Amino acid sequence: MSDETVKYLLPESEIPTHWINLLPDLPGEPLPPLHPGTLQPAGPDDLTPIFPMSLILQEVSAEPQIEIPEPVRDAYKLWRPTPLFRARRWERALDTPAHIYYKYEGVSPAGSHKPNTAVAQAYENAQAGIKRLSTETGAGQWGSALAFACSLFGIECEVFMVGSSYDQKPYRRSMIQTWGATVHRSPSDLTQAGKANASHPTGSLGIAISEAVEVAAQRDDTNYSLGSVLNHVCLHQTVIGQEAIAQMAMAGEQPDVVVGCVGGGSNFAGLTFPFIREVLRGNAKTRFLATEPTACPTLTRGVYRYDFGDTVGLTPLMPMYTLGHDFVPPPVHAGGLRYHGDAPMLCGLVKAGVVEAKAYHQNDIFAAAVEFARAEGIIPGPEPAHAIKGVVDEALAAREAGEERVILLGLSGHGHFDLSAYDAYLAGDLEDPEFSEADIDAAIERLPEAPAIA
Amino acid sequence: MSDETVKYLLPESEIPTHWINLLPDLPGEPLPPLHPGTLQPAGPDDLTPIFPMSLILQEVSAEPQIEIPEPVRDAYKLWRPTPLFRARRWERALDTPAHIYYKYEGVSPAGSHKPNTAVAQAYENAQAGIKRLSTETGAGQWGSALAFACSLFGIECEVFMVGSSYDQKPYRRSMIQTWGATVHRSPSDLTQAGKANASHPTGSLGIAISEAVEVAAQRDDTNYSLGSVLNHVCLHQTVIGQEAIAQMAMAGEQPDVVVGCVGGGSNFAGLTFPFIREVLRGNAKTRFLATEPTACPTLTRGVYRYDFGDTVGLTPLMPMYTLGHDFVPPPVHAGGLRYHGDAPMLCGLVKAGVVEAKAYHQNDIFAAAVEFARAEGIIPGPEPAHAIKGVVDEALAAREAGEERVILLGLSGHGHFDLSAYDAYLAGDLEDPEFSEADIDAAIERLPEAPAIA
Repeated sequence: MSDETVKYLLPESEIPTHWINLLPDLPGEPLPPLHPGTLQPAGPDDLTPIFPMSLILQEVSAEPQIEIPEPVRDAYKLWRPTPLFRARRWERALDTPAHIYYKYEGVSPAGSHKPNTAVAQAYENAQAGIKRLSTETGAGQWGSALAFACSLFGIECEVFMVGSSYDQKPYRRSMIQTWGATVHRSPSDLTQAGKANASHPTGSLGIAISEAVEVAAQRDDTNYSLGSVLNHVCLHQTVIGQEAIAQMAMAGEQPDVVVGCVGGGSNFAGLTFPFIREVLRGNAKTRFLATEPTACPTLTRGVYRYDFGDTVGLTPLMPMYTLGHDFVPPPVHAGGLRYHGDAPMLCGLVKAGVVEAKAYHQNDIFAAAVEFARAEGIIPGPEPAHAIKGVVDEALAAREAGEERVILLGLSGHGHFDLSAYDAYLAGDLEDPEFSEADIDAAIERLPEAPAIA
Repeated sequence: MSDETVKYLLPESEIPTHWINLLPDLPGEPLPPLHPGTLQPAGPDDLTPIFPMSLILQEVSAEPQIEIPEPVRDAYKLWRPTPLFRARRWERALDTPAHIYYKYEGVSPAGSHKPNTAVAQAYENAQAGIKRLSTETGAGQWGSALAFACSLFGIECEVFMVGSSYDQKPYRRSMIQTWGATVHRSPSDLTQAGKANASHPTGSLGIAISEAVEVAAQRDDTNYSLGSVLNHVCLHQTVIGQEAIAQMAMAGEQPDVVVGCVGGGSNFAGLTFPFIREVLRGNAKTRFLATEPTACPTLTRGVYRYDFGDTVGLTPLMPMYTLGHDFVPPPVHAGGLRYHGDAPMLCGLVKAGVVEAKAYHQNDIFAAAVEFARAEGIIPGPEPAHAIKGVVDEALAAREAGEERVILLGLSGHGHFDLSAYDAYLAGDLEDPEFSEADIDAAIERLPEAPAIA
């Protein structure tokens, strides 16, 4: 047993030098975002009040790759390259002939893949002379990643944290403050959006986004930063997949299927886009499985339409699978997956049949996560636990078929701040909240009048 | 800047094949432990009711190295070798000519160095046919490490957790349960020791040890497991220092000083013993700095005497620096450093002048930890924050002297479960609890009548 390799580690010289931009390889014509007021295609100038030009150019670039600035690669060295593991103990526990690998992003200081884009965004804003970034955070994963990144590049960070999380999840808030950022409970009295919603008992991601955007739009020295969905965020995350390709080559294998979880889509994009490019170019025949909660089944139940990125309708409209921008998913512990839409690039790939999607119940994903933790040691976040459940299905299918399939799992973060959810699961107290068909139908009815998409 | 290496990573083939036993290299004659009843030297047979013979033989071995069993090396592959970082950003923040390196053990599933011995102990007990391990845990770091290790080797784990921690730190408890172990609030009604202390409001480490030992002594299929202090625990931790020697060689440097924190001493021993052996053999002139809290100043204020390892006097007497076995240190967040004694091997090295010791106040160690987190990203546990403060002192001394000294820091774990302490520090609400001179004097008065040691 002892000569079996478990981890594939790259030296830091192997941190990618470029991000991979999948946009030029995507099937069909790219669909432009639409201005929320005019419903006409939105251009770069519409975004300059809240984003630096360098990120806007990345957002619309047609170049197949974009060089990573040296200071960003230097920051990546604090935790990258991340390890790729062969899950030998889990394979034995599952009694599967499949070879399971997992790429683990939980080794970053913030504990997930989020810093991959946070450091890139903090750097570009600092270069543009911006003194402060504002952002929203739900459970706190993104807010902590951006706080960490801003501390590296010497800019301030202001985080609007959804009120219920602010009250119930104090430790992510503590992390954000330890890295020197300011956290406001949202709704706050610092913005019009906050004041208008002052009586809202819990706050919502929609309100928090509105507050952060408002702050950025008002102050010349302040920009806004978003942790998922947008093209440039997916772009920054492609360091994950590029490293995984090099590590799978070290292992001498190619994945038959790559499995990840989808909230806004940046984690899934980061792992899969470098592999998907090879498929789109005819060089590989890999399958891709996107997993999501049944409580927020964007890809498996949503409609493919133009919709706002936020709840209140301030952002450009984007072409995507959506449950309706004002659909409120029932509470699940995977807070990072409770988003009504998904990254337009990823949605296009689902529409084109390149990426498959599956939705899972909360108790099933925790059952899979506990089995994983007892075999591999790492306690996964509830978000990647959805991907773990997807891998269990694939591994059992491989056993059924008697085939030695190769499965690659994106393990996007640890669950150190989600242990109360494990408690509830182990105590048998965890619920399986279901969406309401009527609620989704009603939210879809309220979609803006925008051009239909094919 | 970008060609500056930040991390030194070893492939898993470089996980050490042997543990280093410093016992034969120690100066002077080894001092035997004494039987708590007779005060005569205790032999291996005195320990067989609670430890397997293989670990007892490691405890007393005179061999300079002991081979690591293959299944233990396989378990180590889940997180070892751990990374060695060059702290370039922190050096710049400190404006020091010193070169600072840190060996980071927080990448283990339990988040500290503790699993290095937990997997070795779980394996040896499983080999001996033992079905269950019992142990105590304070803040939960050791209990979670042993729970993880037992899950890997298929044996049960029963953890007696100090009542106040059980109530106030639910997430370590959740981790323990996620890995399949059972947690009891101590004092419990499962043991005589627990029943005798049923009215104790918070419990104590002393009571929890008594409960765990009682359970192990009563049941043939159950052994006891200890996470620090003993020779075999220090032995298992030497994988840390051996890897660090190889990684410092990759960096082309030798440490002038190695700095670690000391609770029971196993973390400090693990990092330093491989370096100390070279000093004892005349091959190097490294300094070694042990750091501890002023609230529990074992090495800087204790007396060098024979004392019990536990509070109630069930264990053999060991030769060590001690504040008295029934001294109760004031509460500090570094729960892992609140121990009245220290590993006898380490104490002998302090007595011999090979290891220096310094004590720090709680607010100072958190100030250093926050500066570290903002430079390097990682949020340290309160225990290694003491070592971080020690490094700050050394780095500023190097600046004072205008010398490019090389400093190696043992960063034994992350602070993901200690963020309430960071909160208190950042809010200015953190206290600097001091020990009472009179309490220590009184506890030392109560030391057992045992032979004096030189």
